[in-house]
Amino acid sequence: MSVTTPKGFRANGIASGIKASGEMDLSLVATNTDLPALAVATFTQNRSAAAPVRVSKSHLASSNNLVNAVILNSGNANAANGEKGMEDAKDMARFVAAELGVREDTVLVCSTGLIGIPLDTTPIRLGVKDLVAGLSNDQDGANRSARAIMTTDTVPKTATHLGMGFSIGSIAKGAAMIAPNMATMLSVITTDAKLTPEIAQSALSQAVEVSFNRLVIDGCTSTNDTVILLSSGLGVEPRPSVFADALEGVCRSLADQMAMDAEGAHKLVRIRVVGALNEEHALTLAKKVASSQLVQCSFYGSDPYWGRIASELGSAGVDFDLDRLSVSYGGVEVARGGISIEFDAKALEQKMAKREIVVDCDLALGAGSATVTTTDLSPEYIAENMRTS
Amino acid sequence: MSVTTPKGFRANGIASGIKASGEMDLSLVATNTDLPALAVATFTQNRSAAAPVRVSKSHLASSNNLVNAVILNSGNANAANGEKGMEDAKDMARFVAAELGVREDTVLVCSTGLIGIPLDTTPIRLGVKDLVAGLSNDQDGANRSARAIMTTDTVPKTATHLGMGFSIGSIAKGAAMIAPNMATMLSVITTDAKLTPEIAQSALSQAVEVSFNRLVIDGCTSTNDTVILLSSGLGVEPRPSVFADALEGVCRSLADQMAMDAEGAHKLVRIRVVGALNEEHALTLAKKVASSQLVQCSFYGSDPYWGRIASELGSAGVDFDLDRLSVSYGGVEVARGGISIEFDAKALEQKMAKREIVVDCDLALGAGSATVTTTDLSPEYIAENMRTS
Repeated sequence: MSVTTPKGFRANGIASGIKASGEMDLSLVATNTDLPALAVATFTQNRSAAAPVRVSKSHLASSNNLVNAVILNSGNANAANGEKGMEDAKDMARFVAAELGVREDTVLVCSTGLIGIPLDTTPIRLGVKDLVAGLSNDQDGANRSARAIMTTDTVPKTATHLGMGFSIGSIAKGAAMIAPNMATMLSVITTDAKLTPEIAQSALSQAVEVSFNRLVIDGCTSTNDTVILLSSGLGVEPRPSVFADALEGVCRSLADQMAMDAEGAHKLVRIRVVGALNEEHALTLAKKVASSQLVQCSFYGSDPYWGRIASELGSAGVDFDLDRLSVSYGGVEVARGGISIEFDAKALEQKMAKREIVVDCDLALGAGSATVTTTDLSPEYIAENMRTS
Repeated sequence: MSVTTPKGFRANGIASGIKASGEMDLSLVATNTDLPALAVATFTQNRSAAAPVRVSKSHLASSNNLVNAVILNSGNANAANGEKGMEDAKDMARFVAAELGVREDTVLVCSTGLIGIPLDTTPIRLGVKDLVAGLSNDQDGANRSARAIMTTDTVPKTATHLGMGFSIGSIAKGAAMIAPNMATMLSVITTDAKLTPEIAQSALSQAVEVSFNRLVIDGCTSTNDTVILLSSGLGVEPRPSVFADALEGVCRSLADQMAMDAEGAHKLVRIRVVGALNEEHALTLAKKVASSQLVQCSFYGSDPYWGRIASELGSAGVDFDLDRLSVSYGGVEVARGGISIEFDAKALEQKMAKREIVVDCDLALGAGSATVTTTDLSPEYIAENMRTS
């Protein structure tokens, strides 16, 4: 049931008219009446951060992380819109707050869509009554909230965890900046686990780091990326590590769904670097390989050209010794000691044809490891990204 | 006449049989008999540097930068080939040295082609007699040497400068790592200007920095990139700044030829950042924009979507204030003060349709500026890079 699975949350989504297509474009996740939730979040590091990101940060601070709702729109990112953009983002929170009868700064705001196009908030102002009236804590409300944040996503993305005495639910859209004109990944995660702000923030930061932050599609960081965790506290207080593991699982599932639905992508590729000096070293190298256009092209062609991987590893600017490198595709080793070796071509071909491929790069330098997820780069990606209109 | 324009140089190119296609694949640039040239070079920073790069570095050191020839092959990069690769690269120098009657370490080696495929040096050993016998200081020899280093290049690349009492000639191939399976940019530049090693190295490093190093196609750094400058000293001794300027012009011309011939590219795009804190700051931002897949896709679609540029500038990890940003395409301003402004759509459409587009990003922070050249990202790029065979 996603965001409405944990006790204390309601959700809804409507077509307000922001999208000319008439598709759903306005989503709301809210607590039950008079029950603010503890909220923590991670936001884009982009210095061109969109107005809704700035407003949400400001609201989190002034409300002491006590939040009644998150409003999300698709179809316009409300980024690079100057002062008007800030006013429009605040208006979105204001409309919801008035309808719910709560303080304006207890409403957070997320937007996704085109950058640099002024947002007309009229459809939002007119639609907010229906949006709030339709809030429900059932499956349908959760489904609508997941659908209304989609841009070029082909399927809604949700993940749920049922723990002992607590649960976690979530909706998400996008795949980093791969969603073309539409940019952005957004996610709202709800839980009824009883959490302190410190434990909630720590668990969220860690979960985001090993899931969304290890998904590399095109290396572009959106102006609007936001992940919000809301906790109603109506369930038990789990051990911090138990909650952290559960949240990590939810975020990993959402990240994989994004990769699987990434535009023009035919394959989900895990770049697994082992034998690194430490985790950070492994991560630097895995990200370098995963974000390489040439490596991504090879996956589109199902071509196990490990020379490109060796070249990317060598140009990451960190320690690397080609003479120690082993590379395997789907468990079939193609290089050892930095040179090509004999392999079972038929077995390799079968592995390369699969929808999910694991590439192992063993550096034989230490015990550090890290895995980064990416996709192939296809002509469809270009077709979807070449024009905004 | 390119590399044979300066006094003291001969050149040749042949089809030795490295390429199964039977195309030309072996090139030689040599000094006149018994006249070693001063040689300086810049090499790839890739830690998976190919065997010919390592051998050339070693030969430059042991010969005190006095060089009689550079042998270059296309069709195989001789990279990631372990000890055998090192022996093969040394053999290439040995074959030429024996035929010319010079010391082995006065011959430098360059290779370009597939990575991780053992190089069969038999065709080189058998072909070197013809290669040396055919050396000539006329136009034909220069043309052959330029053709024999081509991989996926569609035209040979040469540039010449005729100065007062000295000249510079050059051949080059590739466009950074864009040449797909074939990787690599190589260039041999000759001059008869009388130079000290210090002046030669300084002029070359500076020229490479503002030309080849400011050409971003896919952000990949090849295992084989090499630029070699040979000086016979048979001309006058120009003022260092005069020589440096001339060399910079030659390198800029070659870099532009590479961009124009980059695989699948339809447009040459200059990302010009002004108003930066200093040149380094401008360069960081210009490279971030130029290497963005999403920005490159926009150019393929002739789409002046400045929001993507704002997003890339904001995620470069350096100072940036969106509220001060102005962006123009071909001189038509589309954003000022960080927001979209009215513009002449027809004039803009005409500018975007051109083969060469200049994008101006004014940060309004300081007086630093830098320009980086890139291309659009097209389906043809993927088609050329998806399979090695």
